[in-house]
Amino acid sequence: MSRRGRLRAFLESPHFERAIVTVIIVNAITLGAETSADLIERTGGFLHLVDRLTLAIFVVELSLRLYAYGRDFFRDPWNYFDTIIVTVALLPATGPASVLRALRILRALRLVSAVPSMRRVVAALLAAIPGMASIIGLLILIMYVAAVMSTELFGPIAPDYFADLPTSLFSLFQIMTGESWPDIAEQVMTEMPWAWIFFVGYILTSSFVVLNLFIAVVVNAMDDQTTSAEEQRTEDQLAKILAEVTRLHAKIDALEAARDDPSREQASAEPVK
Amino acid sequence: MSRRGRLRAFLESPHFERAIVTVIIVNAITLGAETSADLIERTGGFLHLVDRLTLAIFVVELSLRLYAYGRDFFRDPWNYFDTIIVTVALLPATGPASVLRALRILRALRLVSAVPSMRRVVAALLAAIPGMASIIGLLILIMYVAAVMSTELFGPIAPDYFADLPTSLFSLFQIMTGESWPDIAEQVMTEMPWAWIFFVGYILTSSFVVLNLFIAVVVNAMDDQTTSAEEQRTEDQLAKILAEVTRLHAKIDALEAARDDPSREQASAEPVK
Amino acid sequence: MSRRGRLRAFLESPHFERAIVTVIIVNAITLGAETSADLIERTGGFLHLVDRLTLAIFVVELSLRLYAYGRDFFRDPWNYFDTIIVTVALLPATGPASVLRALRILRALRLVSAVPSMRRVVAALLAAIPGMASIIGLLILIMYVAAVMSTELFGPIAPDYFADLPTSLFSLFQIMTGESWPDIAEQVMTEMPWAWIFFVGYILTSSFVVLNLFIAVVVNAMDDQTTSAEEQRTEDQLAKILAEVTRLHAKIDALEAARDDPSREQASAEPVK
Amino acid sequence: MSRRGRLRAFLESPHFERAIVTVIIVNAITLGAETSADLIERTGGFLHLVDRLTLAIFVVELSLRLYAYGRDFFRDPWNYFDTIIVTVALLPATGPASVLRALRILRALRLVSAVPSMRRVVAALLAAIPGMASIIGLLILIMYVAAVMSTELFGPIAPDYFADLPTSLFSLFQIMTGESWPDIAEQVMTEMPWAWIFFVGYILTSSFVVLNLFIAVVVNAMDDQTTSAEEQRTEDQLAKILAEVTRLHAKIDALEAARDDPSREQASAEPVK
Repeated sequence: MSRRGRLRAFLESPHFERAIVTVIIVNAITLGAETSADLIERTGGFLHLVDRLTLAIFVVELSLRLYAYGRDFFRDPWNYFDTIIVTVALLPATGPASVLRALRILRALRLVSAVPSMRRVVAALLAAIPGMASIIGLLILIMYVAAVMSTELFGPIAPDYFADLPTSLFSLFQIMTGESWPDIAEQVMTEMPWAWIFFVGYILTSSFVVLNLFIAVVVNAMDDQTTSAEEQRTEDQLAKILAEVTRLHAKIDALEAARDDPSREQASAEPVK
Repeated sequence: MSRRGRLRAFLESPHFERAIVTVIIVNAITLGAETSADLIERTGGFLHLVDRLTLAIFVVELSLRLYAYGRDFFRDPWNYFDTIIVTVALLPATGPASVLRALRILRALRLVSAVPSMRRVVAALLAAIPGMASIIGLLILIMYVAAVMSTELFGPIAPDYFADLPTSLFSLFQIMTGESWPDIAEQVMTEMPWAWIFFVGYILTSSFVVLNLFIAVVVNAMDDQTTSAEEQRTEDQLAKILAEVTRLHAKIDALEAARDDPSREQASAEPVK
Repeated sequence: MSRRGRLRAFLESPHFERAIVTVIIVNAITLGAETSADLIERTGGFLHLVDRLTLAIFVVELSLRLYAYGRDFFRDPWNYFDTIIVTVALLPATGPASVLRALRILRALRLVSAVPSMRRVVAALLAAIPGMASIIGLLILIMYVAAVMSTELFGPIAPDYFADLPTSLFSLFQIMTGESWPDIAEQVMTEMPWAWIFFVGYILTSSFVVLNLFIAVVVNAMDDQTTSAEEQRTEDQLAKILAEVTRLHAKIDALEAARDDPSREQASAEPVK
Repeated sequence: MSRRGRLRAFLESPHFERAIVTVIIVNAITLGAETSADLIERTGGFLHLVDRLTLAIFVVELSLRLYAYGRDFFRDPWNYFDTIIVTVALLPATGPASVLRALRILRALRLVSAVPSMRRVVAALLAAIPGMASIIGLLILIMYVAAVMSTELFGPIAPDYFADLPTSLFSLFQIMTGESWPDIAEQVMTEMPWAWIFFVGYILTSSFVVLNLFIAVVVNAMDDQTTSAEEQRTEDQLAKILAEVTRLHAKIDALEAARDDPSREQASAEPVK
């Protein structure tokens, strides 16, 4: 085995995988602990040290993988995922409440790429999205149309919710989640009593589309997973029947051939006598 | 090809369809931009110009389609949809916050009729409605009965929510969406402590009916889409087995015929010797 | 046909059924109109008159049905439903906001028993309940246990929500519908910070049980309705294959019989020669 | 039958089981009644007496079961469940609002282990959990990452909701149940207008994962229960066809054997003549 081959074997060994998972979990815990000013003070630089160390391990691991797999490294989308997360962690985080500092915890998501069963679940979730594309498009279209309409109609009446297009979109998303919509509706309806048509219509339409989005996901999931045991048994039995019927054909063909050519039959029959 | 035929081919060409989709999207964006007084001012009459232009394109496209398809134009329900939307856009919109002005954004819905995959999704959504008719009827009946009851019983106690029939219907729709129902119930229950029976009963009943509405949609969707690959394979294999068994019949018939009529058999067998 | 037979035929005729449905709808509308003091005043005694009249029609119809069907009348549970509703409507309603007055609108529910498709939907809904009995029992048990626990633990802290058992049950039902639970939880958690365990545990448990309640209903609905067209086709084709194979048996039996008894064969074969 | 055997038969007799169920229900009612100071006063020590008595019955029953089944007692997980509940009830409960006092009502959960149909439902619910493990893990990971991020980013702005990690986790659970999230979002967005990305992203992601959790449960439930009647019929018919085809083989084999060895055939045929 080449040096690369041995490195690959090492990277794929259960021991190494378990070690990396442990490092990720340790890192996730220390990053969680760092949210507490109290804990940072008490542990001194320890938490920071662990953080630096785990980051170093990630960089080394990624470099090893890049070396070991060469071009193949770029074929696995999970490697892109890992690379992006580690790169984000390496960017210098300045300022006390920097967004980049907060993004360090994304490293915990490496757990998804490191644990095979997690990876499968996420792959299954992502696989459901293309089948939902048209319905999501429809939903976005409905929200956009409703946002433009509500901004024009309700903007002057309820500027808290419909002042401009982004605000309206946020309010409509809020209404779609069913949260506090009566408050919004009442504020508008004091001046435009017929506005209930808009709100009830929007709620019914968006719920119905979201329901169909769910159904699309369910139907997809069913189709993928329902080669259930007994369907497999049906398949197997059908294959068996077909094989048996084919054997019947062969036998009857032999019978007929024997009849057409009694001499050959006799010949084959003779040793039996 | 006739002139109409060539026009049809042009209207159905992917290039033309893509162009129309682009126009719809541009129009949707400008209509969205027009909700911002700031953007209107900065761009001067540009947004308005684009709006006029796209409307003109829609009118021309619709006229061309009407000319090209003649009577067939009225057979496709999507054409009615497009005609209504364009007609609404042509109505003169006076006043600053006219409803008709707000309805212009409905033109963005032309995206549904212009993109085939969207059209299919909407057709599938609409196809689910007839199967839901009885349950929707039951739901409306329950809401109506509950509204009349609550207006009579709770009207004097909680006029904010149950003053008259329309207000009660709105409140009951709100309760059905699960929004702020405890506030309404508490206001009533201060004077009628047993009113929880009405609210809990209404919530359970309406949830159960809505659940069954969902199930009806799911079951319909399943029935339509579950000619899954493997069921098709089962079908194929069954057809194959049946064909094989039929061939067996033919062979045995031949065998028997030969036996009944050895001379014919001999004759057919002779060339083999 | 006997007099009763003719009466039955009349009662079951589509004309009569449509007439009764019309009377029910008219009655529902007038009962709705009576919720408005304004409309009552404007129409004078008209609404009241229609109400009396429709009630009289219901009484007559029910009496005719009772006479026409005799004992069979008591076999159809829908007849009990109609009898109870009409009886309730006949009870004297005194006082301005009497509950009995409000119950009159229940007559609109007769629409369910009068329209066959509605009747089927309601029958299907009711048929789903027995399969849900155990899970509903479990849910009630969980709610009861949680109510006793929360009354003992949180009663002194948050008497608004957990003063006594009925209040706790109502609050827990409210939490189960997901409404304003953070308000309740926060009020308790100010004194008992660990109370989040109770609330989160209760929400997760009850959601999971409710989810399984839904699944039980869905699975039942599926089982009933999924003798889909193609499964029927599979069945049909299997039956066909079995019949063909049986015919093969008969042929081979005949072949063998002929071989065992050439004379009989000869005899049957002779006319062919 | 041995003494233990007779004891087992007694413990498993429907009479004894019904008696225990009655005791559990009586105990549950008295424990519920004890939440009312008024009822305790009026009934004097009666409620307390019943409570002591039922507890004594449970202890005796459990001891009998332990004696009767010996080692087998520890094989049934429901026995652990009963033992823990009875042990908790025996712990001394001091202080007026002791948690242990509140835990006494857990004895009502013995209804689950005492009623077979309840036991089946709970077993089915628990059986669904392993299939959900990966998705639950993913959900916890997402919540943890979101909690660390929101504590770092929003902690100083909205300390009510994101002061430290546990508070953030509770707030994020609250947001996931869809309760009052706009209030939280608005408080944060006054200082960080782009925070809507976090909230909308979190709501969409967590809803999608929860939806897939539901689907996993539904698909599992379907797989288990859908050996529906007609699938069974398909199976049966396939088995029948296979048996028939096998019999065909045997017949043709016999035919061929007879042909190969006419003497044996003659012999077997002779008696027929």
